Amino acid sequence: MATRRETPEGAAKRPPGLAAVTLFGALAEADRAAVERQCRWRLYAAHEQIVDREAETRDVHFVATGTARIMIYTASGREVALDDVEAGGFFGELAAFDGEPRSASVMAVCDSWIAALPATRFLAMLEAHPAVSMEVMRRMSRIIRAATDRIVELSTLGANNRVQAEVLRQALAAGADGDGRAVISPIPIHADIASRVSTTRETVARVLNDLARQGFLSRERAGLVVHDVARLELLVQDLT
Amino acid sequence: MATRRETPEGAAKRPPGLAAVTLFGALAEADRAAVERQCRWRLYAAHEQIVDREAETRDVHFVATGTARIMIYTASGREVALDDVEAGGFFGELAAFDGEPRSASVMAVCDSWIAALPATRFLAMLEAHPAVSMEVMRRMSRIIRAATDRIVELSTLGANNRVQAEVLRQALAAGADGDGRAVISPIPIHADIASRVSTTRETVARVLNDLARQGFLSRERAGLVVHDVARLELLVQDLT
Repeated sequence: MATRRETPEGAAKRPPGLAAVTLFGALAEADRAAVERQCRWRLYAAHEQIVDREAETRDVHFVATGTARIMIYTASGREVALDDVEAGGFFGELAAFDGEPRSASVMAVCDSWIAALPATRFLAMLEAHPAVSMEVMRRMSRIIRAATDRIVELSTLGANNRVQAEVLRQALAAGADGDGRAVISPIPIHADIASRVSTTRETVARVLNDLARQGFLSRERAGLVVHDVARLELLVQDLT
Repeated sequence: MATRRETPEGAAKRPPGLAAVTLFGALAEADRAAVERQCRWRLYAAHEQIVDREAETRDVHFVATGTARIMIYTASGREVALDDVEAGGFFGELAAFDGEPRSASVMAVCDSWIAALPATRFLAMLEAHPAVSMEVMRRMSRIIRAATDRIVELSTLGANNRVQAEVLRQALAAGADGDGRAVISPIPIHADIASRVSTTRETVARVLNDLARQGFLSRERAGLVVHDVARLELLVQDLT
Protein backbone atom coordinates (compact mmCIF):
# COMPACT_ATOMS: atom_id res chain seq x y z
CA MET A 1 0.00 0.00 0.00
CA ALA A 2 1.35 3.43 -0.93
CA THR A 3 1.99 5.83 1.94
CA ARG A 4 1.50 9.57 2.10
CA ARG A 5 4.09 11.16 -0.14
CA GLU A 6 6.24 14.06 1.00
CA THR A 7 5.53 17.13 -1.11
CA PRO A 8 8.28 17.13 -3.74
CA GLU A 9 8.97 20.86 -3.70
CA GLY A 10 8.72 21.60 -0.01
CA ALA A 11 5.95 22.87 2.25
CA ALA A 12 4.90 25.58 -0.21
CA LYS A 13 3.00 22.97 -2.20
CA ARG A 14 -0.43 22.82 -0.62
CA PRO A 15 -3.76 21.34 -1.78
CA PRO A 16 -5.06 23.56 -4.59
CA GLY A 17 -8.75 23.43 -3.59
CA LEU A 18 -11.79 22.44 -5.65
CA ALA A 19 -12.14 25.62 -7.75
CA ALA A 20 -10.97 23.79 -10.90
CA VAL A 21 -13.48 20.93 -10.48
CA THR A 22 -16.24 21.61 -13.01
CA LEU A 23 -18.78 19.50 -11.09
CA PHE A 24 -18.97 22.31 -8.53
CA GLY A 25 -19.46 25.06 -11.11
CA ALA A 26 -23.12 25.35 -10.13
CA LEU A 27 -22.36 25.70 -6.39
CA ALA A 28 -22.09 28.97 -4.48
CA GLU A 29 -18.56 29.53 -3.15
CA ALA A 30 -19.65 28.94 0.44
CA ASP A 31 -21.18 25.57 -0.49
CA ARG A 32 -18.05 24.55 -2.36
CA ALA A 33 -15.94 25.56 0.63
CA ALA A 34 -18.13 23.35 2.82
CA VAL A 35 -17.50 20.37 0.52
CA GLU A 36 -13.79 21.18 0.51
CA ARG A 37 -13.63 20.91 4.29
CA GLN A 38 -15.07 17.37 4.11
CA CYS A 39 -12.38 16.16 1.70
CA ARG A 40 -9.10 14.44 2.44
CA TRP A 41 -6.35 15.71 0.15
CA ARG A 42 -3.36 13.85 -1.14
CA LEU A 43 -0.64 14.45 -3.71
CA TYR A 44 -0.05 11.28 -5.72
CA ALA A 45 3.20 10.75 -7.63
CA ALA A 46 3.19 9.64 -11.27
CA HIS A 47 2.20 5.94 -11.54
CA GLU A 48 1.08 5.77 -7.91
CA GLN A 49 -2.16 3.86 -7.32
CA ILE A 50 -5.14 5.95 -6.18
CA VAL A 51 -7.88 3.29 -6.08
CA ASP A 52 -7.27 -0.43 -5.74
CA ARG A 53 -9.98 -2.46 -7.47
CA GLU A 54 -9.97 -4.86 -4.52
CA ALA A 55 -10.35 -2.12 -1.90
CA GLU A 56 -13.50 -1.67 0.16
CA THR A 57 -13.50 2.14 -0.04
CA ARG A 58 -16.49 4.10 -1.38
CA ASP A 59 -14.93 7.60 -1.61
CA VAL A 60 -15.54 9.81 -4.62
CA HIS A 61 -12.37 11.47 -5.94
CA PHE A 62 -11.88 14.91 -7.48
CA VAL A 63 -8.86 15.62 -9.68
CA ALA A 64 -7.64 19.12 -8.80
CA THR A 65 -4.38 18.88 -10.77
CA GLY A 66 -2.83 16.13 -12.91
CA THR A 67 -4.54 13.16 -14.57
CA ALA A 68 -5.98 9.88 -13.26
CA ARG A 69 -6.18 6.76 -15.42
CA ILE A 70 -9.03 4.26 -14.94
CA MET A 71 -7.70 0.75 -15.67
CA ILE A 72 -8.67 -2.86 -15.34
CA TYR A 73 -5.95 -5.45 -14.78
CA THR A 74 -7.32 -8.88 -15.63
CA ALA A 75 -6.34 -12.09 -13.83
CA SER A 76 -4.36 -13.10 -16.91
CA GLY A 77 -2.30 -9.90 -16.69
CA ARG A 78 -3.94 -7.87 -19.47
CA GLU A 79 -4.38 -4.11 -18.99
CA VAL A 80 -7.59 -2.55 -20.31
CA ALA A 81 -7.59 1.27 -20.13
CA LEU A 82 -11.08 2.69 -19.69
CA ASP A 83 -10.69 6.46 -19.36
CA ASP A 84 -8.34 9.29 -18.43
CA VAL A 85 -9.80 11.80 -15.99
CA GLU A 86 -8.07 15.15 -16.40
CA ALA A 87 -7.80 18.00 -13.90
CA GLY A 88 -11.29 19.29 -13.15
CA GLY A 89 -12.90 15.85 -13.38
CA PHE A 90 -13.97 13.24 -10.87
CA PHE A 91 -14.18 9.44 -10.55
CA GLY A 92 -15.24 6.72 -8.13
CA GLU A 93 -18.97 7.56 -8.13
CA LEU A 94 -20.22 4.06 -9.06
CA ALA A 95 -19.31 2.47 -5.73
CA ALA A 96 -20.81 5.50 -3.95
CA PHE A 97 -24.14 5.00 -5.75
CA ASP A 98 -24.57 1.25 -5.62
CA GLY A 99 -22.32 0.18 -2.73
CA GLU A 100 -20.75 -2.50 -4.92
CA PRO A 101 -16.97 -3.08 -5.08
CA ARG A 102 -14.81 -0.81 -7.22
CA SER A 103 -15.31 -1.44 -10.95
CA ALA A 104 -11.69 -0.59 -11.81
CA SER A 105 -8.34 0.51 -10.49
CA VAL A 106 -7.11 4.10 -10.79
CA MET A 107 -3.55 5.39 -10.97
CA ALA A 108 -1.99 8.82 -11.31
CA VAL A 109 -0.54 9.46 -14.79
CA CYS A 110 1.61 12.35 -13.44
CA ASP A 111 1.90 14.15 -10.08
CA SER A 112 -1.74 14.79 -9.17
CA TRP A 113 -3.56 16.48 -6.30
CA ILE A 114 -6.65 14.40 -5.55
CA ALA A 115 -9.44 15.12 -3.03
CA ALA A 116 -11.39 12.19 -1.56
CA LEU A 117 -14.96 12.72 -0.31
CA PRO A 118 -16.72 9.93 1.64
CA ALA A 119 -19.71 8.44 -0.23
CA THR A 120 -22.27 9.52 2.40
CA ARG A 121 -21.09 13.14 2.15
CA PHE A 122 -21.13 12.99 -1.65
CA LEU A 123 -24.69 11.64 -1.74
CA ALA A 124 -25.88 14.23 0.81
CA MET A 125 -24.33 16.97 -1.34
CA LEU A 126 -26.21 15.70 -4.43
CA GLU A 127 -29.50 15.59 -2.53
CA ALA A 128 -29.02 19.19 -1.47
CA HIS A 129 -27.94 20.44 -4.92
CA PRO A 130 -29.97 19.08 -7.88
CA ALA A 131 -27.82 21.08 -10.33
CA VAL A 132 -24.79 19.04 -9.25
CA SER A 133 -26.77 15.78 -9.69
CA MET A 134 -27.64 16.93 -13.19
CA GLU A 135 -23.95 17.44 -13.97
CA VAL A 136 -23.17 13.95 -12.61
CA MET A 137 -25.86 12.45 -14.88
CA ARG A 138 -24.47 14.31 -17.90
CA ARG A 139 -21.00 12.95 -17.07
CA MET A 140 -22.40 9.41 -16.71
CA SER A 141 -24.17 9.82 -20.07
CA ARG A 142 -20.82 10.64 -21.70
CA ILE A 143 -19.25 7.56 -20.10
CA ILE A 144 -22.07 5.31 -21.36
CA ARG A 145 -21.84 6.74 -24.88
CA ALA A 146 -18.06 6.24 -24.98
CA ALA A 147 -18.42 2.68 -23.65
CA THR A 148 -21.10 1.95 -26.27
CA ASP A 149 -18.85 3.23 -29.06
CA ARG A 150 -16.05 1.02 -27.79
CA ILE A 151 -18.30 -2.05 -27.58
CA VAL A 152 -19.43 -1.47 -31.18
CA GLU A 153 -15.80 -1.01 -32.30
CA LEU A 154 -14.65 -4.16 -30.52
CA SER A 155 -17.62 -6.03 -32.00
CA THR A 156 -17.18 -4.91 -35.58
CA LEU A 157 -13.64 -3.66 -36.24
CA GLY A 158 -10.34 -5.47 -36.39
CA ALA A 159 -7.42 -4.26 -34.28
CA ASN A 160 -5.87 -2.25 -37.15
CA ASN A 161 -9.05 -0.28 -37.68
CA ARG A 162 -9.52 0.32 -33.95
CA VAL A 163 -6.10 1.96 -33.83
CA GLN A 164 -7.09 4.22 -36.75
CA ALA A 165 -10.34 5.10 -34.94
CA GLU A 166 -8.40 5.97 -31.76
CA VAL A 167 -6.04 8.28 -33.68
CA LEU A 168 -9.12 9.94 -35.19
CA ARG A 169 -10.67 10.40 -31.73
CA GLN A 170 -7.49 12.02 -30.40
CA ALA A 171 -7.27 14.27 -33.49
CA LEU A 172 -10.90 15.38 -33.03
CA ALA A 173 -10.27 16.01 -29.33
CA ALA A 174 -7.20 18.12 -30.19
CA GLY A 175 -9.29 20.08 -32.72
CA ALA A 176 -8.52 20.81 -36.37
CA ASP A 177 -7.17 24.15 -37.57
CA GLY A 178 -8.44 26.07 -40.63
CA ASP A 179 -6.63 23.68 -42.96
CA GLY A 180 -8.24 20.62 -41.35
CA ARG A 181 -4.94 19.73 -39.65
CA ALA A 182 -4.74 18.55 -36.01
CA VAL A 183 -1.76 18.19 -33.70
CA ILE A 184 -1.92 15.48 -31.04
CA SER A 185 0.48 16.59 -28.33
CA PRO A 186 2.36 15.06 -26.67
CA ILE A 187 2.89 12.24 -29.17
CA PRO A 188 0.84 9.31 -27.81
CA ILE A 189 2.65 6.36 -26.28
CA HIS A 190 2.07 3.11 -28.22
CA ALA A 191 1.33 1.12 -25.06
CA ASP A 192 -1.35 3.65 -24.05
CA ILE A 193 -3.13 3.39 -27.40
CA ALA A 194 -2.80 -0.41 -27.21
CA SER A 195 -4.54 -0.65 -23.82
CA ARG A 196 -7.25 1.80 -24.92
CA VAL A 197 -8.25 -0.21 -28.00
CA SER A 198 -7.33 -3.66 -26.70
CA THR A 199 -4.46 -4.66 -28.94
CA THR A 200 -0.68 -5.00 -28.78
CA ARG A 201 2.00 -2.28 -28.96
CA GLU A 202 3.35 -3.97 -32.08
CA THR A 203 0.02 -3.54 -33.87
CA VAL A 204 -0.13 0.13 -32.84
CA ALA A 205 3.40 0.73 -34.16
CA ARG A 206 2.61 -0.98 -37.46
CA VAL A 207 -0.66 0.89 -38.04
CA LEU A 208 0.90 4.28 -37.21
CA ASN A 209 3.74 3.53 -39.63
CA ASP A 210 1.23 2.57 -42.34
CA LEU A 211 -0.76 5.77 -41.76
CA ALA A 212 2.44 7.82 -41.97
CA ARG A 213 3.46 6.10 -45.21
CA GLN A 214 0.03 6.81 -46.69
CA GLY A 215 0.40 10.50 -45.82
CA PHE A 216 -2.25 10.61 -43.11
CA LEU A 217 0.12 11.71 -40.37
CA SER A 218 3.67 12.57 -39.45
CA ARG A 219 5.68 12.72 -36.27
CA GLU A 220 6.87 16.30 -35.76
CA ARG A 221 8.42 18.35 -32.97
CA ALA A 222 4.98 19.77 -32.06
CA GLY A 223 3.41 16.33 -31.77
CA LEU A 224 1.74 13.73 -33.94
CA VAL A 225 0.33 15.73 -36.86
CA VAL A 226 -2.81 14.48 -38.62
CA HIS A 227 -2.69 16.30 -41.96
CA ASP A 228 -6.35 15.99 -42.96
CA VAL A 229 -8.74 15.02 -40.18
CA ALA A 230 -11.70 14.81 -42.59
CA ARG A 231 -9.82 12.35 -44.80
CA LEU A 232 -8.98 10.16 -41.79
CA GLU A 233 -12.64 10.38 -40.74
CA LEU A 234 -13.72 9.02 -44.13
CA LEU A 235 -11.26 6.14 -43.81
CA VAL A 236 -12.65 5.20 -40.38
CA GLN A 237 -16.33 5.69 -41.30
CA ASP A 238 -15.94 3.30 -44.18
CA LEU A 239 -15.36 0.50 -41.72
CA THR A 240 -18.29 0.21 -39.33
CA MET B 1 -42.47 5.21 -39.56
CA ALA B 2 -44.77 3.00 -37.47
CA THR B 3 -48.27 4.34 -36.80
CA ARG B 4 -50.40 4.03 -33.69
CA ARG B 5 -51.42 0.44 -33.45
CA GLU B 6 -55.00 -0.64 -32.84
CA THR B 7 -55.31 -2.42 -29.53
CA PRO B 8 -55.20 -6.10 -30.39
CA GLU B 9 -57.88 -7.26 -27.96
CA GLY B 10 -60.39 -4.44 -28.24
CA ALA B 11 -60.99 -1.24 -26.31
CA ALA B 12 -60.64 -2.94 -22.92
CA LYS B 13 -56.87 -2.84 -23.31
CA ARG B 14 -55.90 0.55 -21.92
CA PRO B 15 -52.54 2.01 -20.78
CA PRO B 16 -51.60 0.24 -17.54
CA GLY B 17 -50.14 3.31 -15.78
CA LEU B 18 -46.72 3.81 -14.18
CA ALA B 19 -47.28 1.83 -10.95
CA ALA B 20 -44.92 -0.94 -12.14
CA VAL B 21 -42.08 1.45 -12.98
CA THR B 22 -39.56 1.11 -10.14
CA LEU B 23 -38.04 4.53 -10.82
CA PHE B 24 -41.15 6.10 -9.28
CA GLY B 25 -41.10 3.90 -6.18
CA ALA B 26 -39.92 6.87 -4.11
CA LEU B 27 -42.72 9.17 -5.33
CA ALA B 28 -46.00 9.84 -3.53
CA GLU B 29 -48.97 8.58 -5.54
CA ALA B 30 -50.12 12.11 -6.37
CA ASP B 31 -46.68 12.96 -7.78
CA ARG B 32 -46.64 9.80 -9.86
CA ALA B 33 -50.12 10.58 -11.16
CA ALA B 34 -48.86 14.03 -12.20
CA VAL B 35 -46.01 12.44 -14.19
CA GLU B 36 -48.48 9.98 -15.71
CA ARG B 37 -50.61 12.82 -17.07
CA GLN B 38 -47.54 14.23 -18.89
CA CYS B 39 -46.81 10.96 -20.68
CA ARG B 40 -47.91 9.83 -24.12
CA TRP B 41 -48.84 6.14 -24.10
CA ARG B 42 -48.50 3.66 -26.90
CA LEU B 43 -48.81 -0.09 -27.31
CA TYR B 44 -45.99 -1.41 -29.48
CA ALA B 45 -46.26 -4.75 -31.24
CA ALA B 46 -43.47 -7.32 -31.07
CA HIS B 47 -40.50 -6.23 -33.23
CA GLU B 48 -41.90 -2.73 -33.73
CA GLN B 49 -39.35 0.08 -33.47
CA ILE B 50 -39.74 2.40 -30.47
CA VAL B 51 -36.71 4.67 -30.93
CA ASP B 52 -34.93 5.25 -34.23
CA ARG B 53 -31.24 6.00 -33.71
CA GLU B 54 -31.44 8.70 -36.36
CA ALA B 55 -34.47 10.43 -34.82
CA GLU B 56 -34.28 13.86 -33.20
CA THR B 57 -36.53 12.98 -30.25
CA ARG B 58 -35.41 13.43 -26.65
CA ASP B 59 -38.25 11.64 -24.82
CA VAL B 60 -37.53 9.30 -21.92
CA HIS B 61 -39.46 6.02 -22.13
CA PHE B 62 -40.94 3.88 -19.36
CA VAL B 63 -41.71 0.21 -19.94
CA ALA B 64 -45.04 -0.54 -18.23
CA THR B 65 -45.46 -4.00 -19.75
CA GLY B 66 -43.34 -6.07 -22.15
CA THR B 67 -39.63 -5.73 -22.94
CA ALA B 68 -37.60 -3.22 -24.96
CA ARG B 69 -34.32 -4.15 -26.64
CA ILE B 70 -31.55 -1.55 -27.02
CA MET B 71 -29.64 -2.26 -30.26
CA ILE B 72 -27.08 -0.73 -32.55
CA TYR B 73 -27.26 -1.49 -36.26
CA THR B 74 -23.93 -0.63 -37.85
CA ALA B 75 -23.53 0.76 -41.36
CA SER B 76 -22.15 -2.63 -42.43
CA GLY B 77 -25.35 -4.35 -41.23
CA ARG B 78 -24.11 -5.85 -37.97
CA GLU B 79 -26.46 -5.92 -34.97
CA VAL B 80 -24.96 -5.24 -31.54
CA ALA B 81 -27.42 -5.83 -28.67
CA LEU B 82 -26.72 -3.60 -25.69
CA ASP B 83 -29.44 -4.30 -23.14
CA ASP B 84 -32.98 -5.59 -22.61
CA VAL B 85 -35.17 -3.29 -20.52
CA GLU B 86 -37.92 -5.32 -18.87
CA ALA B 87 -41.29 -4.12 -17.56
CA GLY B 88 -40.68 -1.62 -14.77
CA GLY B 89 -37.55 -0.15 -16.36
CA PHE B 90 -36.82 2.92 -18.46
CA PHE B 91 -34.57 4.02 -21.33
CA GLY B 92 -33.74 7.03 -23.47
CA GLU B 93 -32.30 9.16 -20.67
CA LEU B 94 -28.93 9.89 -22.33
CA ALA B 95 -30.36 12.19 -25.02
CA ALA B 96 -32.48 13.90 -22.34
CA PHE B 97 -29.37 14.67 -20.27
CA ASP B 98 -26.89 15.75 -22.92
CA GLY B 99 -29.10 16.76 -25.87
CA GLU B 100 -27.00 14.61 -28.22
CA PRO B 101 -28.55 12.27 -30.80
CA ARG B 102 -29.85 8.87 -29.71
CA SER B 103 -27.03 6.47 -28.87
CA ALA B 104 -28.95 3.41 -30.07
CA SER B 105 -32.20 2.13 -31.56
CA VAL B 106 -34.88 0.45 -29.43
CA MET B 107 -37.45 -2.13 -30.47
CA ALA B 108 -40.19 -4.01 -28.66
CA VAL B 109 -39.34 -7.68 -28.04
CA CYS B 110 -43.03 -8.53 -27.47
CA ASP B 111 -46.25 -6.48 -27.21
CA SER B 112 -45.27 -3.65 -24.86
CA TRP B 113 -47.02 -0.65 -23.32
CA ILE B 114 -44.54 2.23 -23.32
CA ALA B 115 -44.97 5.73 -21.87
CA ALA B 116 -42.98 8.62 -23.37
CA LEU B 117 -42.15 11.68 -21.26
CA PRO B 118 -40.64 14.78 -22.92
CA ALA B 119 -37.05 15.50 -21.80
CA THR B 120 -37.88 18.87 -20.22
CA ARG B 121 -40.58 17.27 -18.06
CA PHE B 122 -38.26 14.42 -17.09
CA LEU B 123 -35.50 16.81 -16.02
CA ALA B 124 -37.96 18.99 -14.07
CA MET B 125 -39.23 15.89 -12.28
CA LEU B 126 -35.66 14.93 -11.28
CA GLU B 127 -34.94 18.44 -9.98
CA ALA B 128 -38.05 18.26 -7.81
CA HIS B 129 -37.39 14.73 -6.54
CA PRO B 130 -33.76 14.00 -5.54
CA ALA B 131 -34.70 10.42 -4.58
CA VAL B 132 -35.65 9.74 -8.20
CA SER B 133 -32.35 11.25 -9.40
CA MET B 134 -30.55 8.91 -7.02
CA GLU B 135 -32.37 5.94 -8.57
CA VAL B 136 -31.41 7.16 -12.07
CA MET B 137 -27.76 7.35 -11.00
CA ARG B 138 -27.88 3.84 -9.54
CA ARG B 139 -29.33 2.59 -12.83
CA MET B 140 -26.63 4.40 -14.83
CA SER B 141 -24.00 2.85 -12.52
CA ARG B 142 -25.30 -0.61 -13.38
CA ILE B 143 -25.18 0.22 -17.11
CA ILE B 144 -21.57 1.43 -16.82
CA ARG B 145 -20.52 -1.67 -14.87
CA ALA B 146 -22.15 -3.99 -17.43
CA ALA B 147 -20.52 -2.08 -20.31
CA THR B 148 -17.15 -2.27 -18.58
CA ASP B 149 -17.50 -6.03 -18.13
CA ARG B 150 -18.35 -6.40 -21.80
CA ILE B 151 -15.37 -4.25 -22.88
CA VAL B 152 -13.05 -6.40 -20.77
CA GLU B 153 -14.58 -9.58 -22.21
CA LEU B 154 -14.29 -8.35 -25.79
CA SER B 155 -10.71 -7.28 -25.07
CA THR B 156 -9.54 -10.47 -23.47
CA LEU B 157 -11.78 -13.41 -24.40
CA GLY B 158 -12.31 -15.22 -27.67
CA ALA B 159 -15.83 -15.66 -29.03
CA ASN B 160 -16.22 -19.20 -27.60
CA ASN B 161 -15.44 -18.01 -24.10
CA ARG B 162 -17.75 -14.99 -24.40
CA VAL B 163 -20.64 -17.34 -25.19
CA GLN B 164 -19.78 -19.38 -22.07
CA ALA B 165 -19.68 -16.17 -20.00
CA GLU B 166 -23.11 -15.12 -21.36
CA VAL B 167 -24.64 -18.49 -20.44
CA LEU B 168 -23.18 -18.06 -16.95
CA ARG B 169 -24.67 -14.55 -16.67
CA GLN B 170 -28.11 -15.83 -17.65
CA ALA B 171 -27.81 -18.73 -15.20
CA LEU B 172 -26.85 -16.37 -12.37
CA ALA B 173 -29.75 -14.05 -13.28
CA ALA B 174 -32.14 -17.03 -13.23
CA GLY B 175 -30.80 -18.05 -9.81
CA ALA B 176 -29.50 -21.47 -8.69
CA ASP B 177 -31.58 -23.87 -6.60
CA GLY B 178 -30.30 -25.78 -3.54
CA ASP B 179 -28.41 -28.22 -5.76
CA GLY B 180 -26.62 -25.40 -7.62
CA ARG B 181 -28.81 -25.95 -10.68
CA ALA B 182 -30.30 -23.07 -12.71
CA VAL B 183 -33.01 -23.08 -15.38
CA ILE B 184 -32.80 -20.43 -18.10
CA SER B 185 -36.34 -20.05 -19.42
CA PRO B 186 -37.38 -19.64 -22.16
CA ILE B 187 -34.43 -21.32 -23.89
CA PRO B 188 -32.34 -18.46 -25.30
CA ILE B 189 -32.36 -17.84 -29.04
CA HIS B 190 -28.93 -18.32 -30.63
CA ALA B 191 -29.17 -15.08 -32.61
CA ASP B 192 -29.89 -13.14 -29.39
CA ILE B 193 -26.83 -14.54 -27.62
CA ALA B 194 -24.78 -13.86 -30.76
CA SER B 195 -25.68 -10.16 -30.88
CA ARG B 196 -25.13 -9.81 -27.13
CA VAL B 197 -21.56 -11.14 -27.21
CA SER B 198 -20.68 -10.06 -30.75
CA THR B 199 -20.26 -13.35 -32.55
CA THR B 200 -22.15 -15.51 -35.06
CA ARG B 201 -25.13 -17.81 -34.51
CA GLU B 202 -22.98 -20.71 -35.72
CA THR B 203 -20.44 -20.07 -32.95
CA VAL B 204 -23.22 -19.92 -30.34
CA ALA B 205 -24.68 -23.22 -31.57
CA ARG B 206 -21.28 -24.92 -31.51
CA VAL B 207 -20.37 -23.70 -28.00
CA LEU B 208 -23.76 -24.69 -26.56
CA ASN B 209 -23.39 -28.15 -28.11
CA ASP B 210 -19.89 -28.45 -26.63
CA LEU B 211 -21.15 -27.41 -23.18
CA ALA B 212 -23.97 -29.94 -23.44
CA ARG B 213 -21.55 -32.72 -24.45
CA GLN B 214 -19.32 -31.85 -21.49
CA GLY B 215 -22.30 -32.15 -19.14
CA PHE B 216 -22.56 -28.44 -18.24
CA LEU B 217 -26.09 -28.06 -19.56
CA SER B 218 -29.03 -29.73 -21.22
CA ARG B 219 -32.05 -28.58 -23.17
CA GLU B 220 -35.17 -29.63 -21.28
CA ARG B 221 -38.88 -28.86 -21.39
CA ALA B 222 -38.50 -26.31 -18.55
CA GLY B 223 -35.72 -24.45 -20.35
CA LEU B 224 -31.94 -24.55 -20.75
CA VAL B 225 -30.74 -26.29 -17.59
CA VAL B 226 -27.29 -25.45 -16.21
CA HIS B 227 -26.52 -28.42 -13.98
CA ASP B 228 -23.83 -26.89 -11.80
CA VAL B 229 -23.60 -23.10 -11.91
CA ALA B 230 -20.50 -23.07 -9.68
CA ARG B 231 -18.66 -25.43 -12.05
CA LEU B 232 -19.52 -23.22 -15.04
CA GLU B 233 -18.35 -20.21 -13.02
CA LEU B 234 -14.96 -21.87 -12.49
CA LEU B 235 -14.65 -22.56 -16.21
CA VAL B 236 -15.35 -18.91 -17.06
CA GLN B 237 -13.19 -17.42 -14.28
CA ASP B 238 -10.20 -19.39 -15.52
CA LEU B 239 -10.24 -17.32 -18.69
CA THR B 240 -9.92 -13.63 -17.85
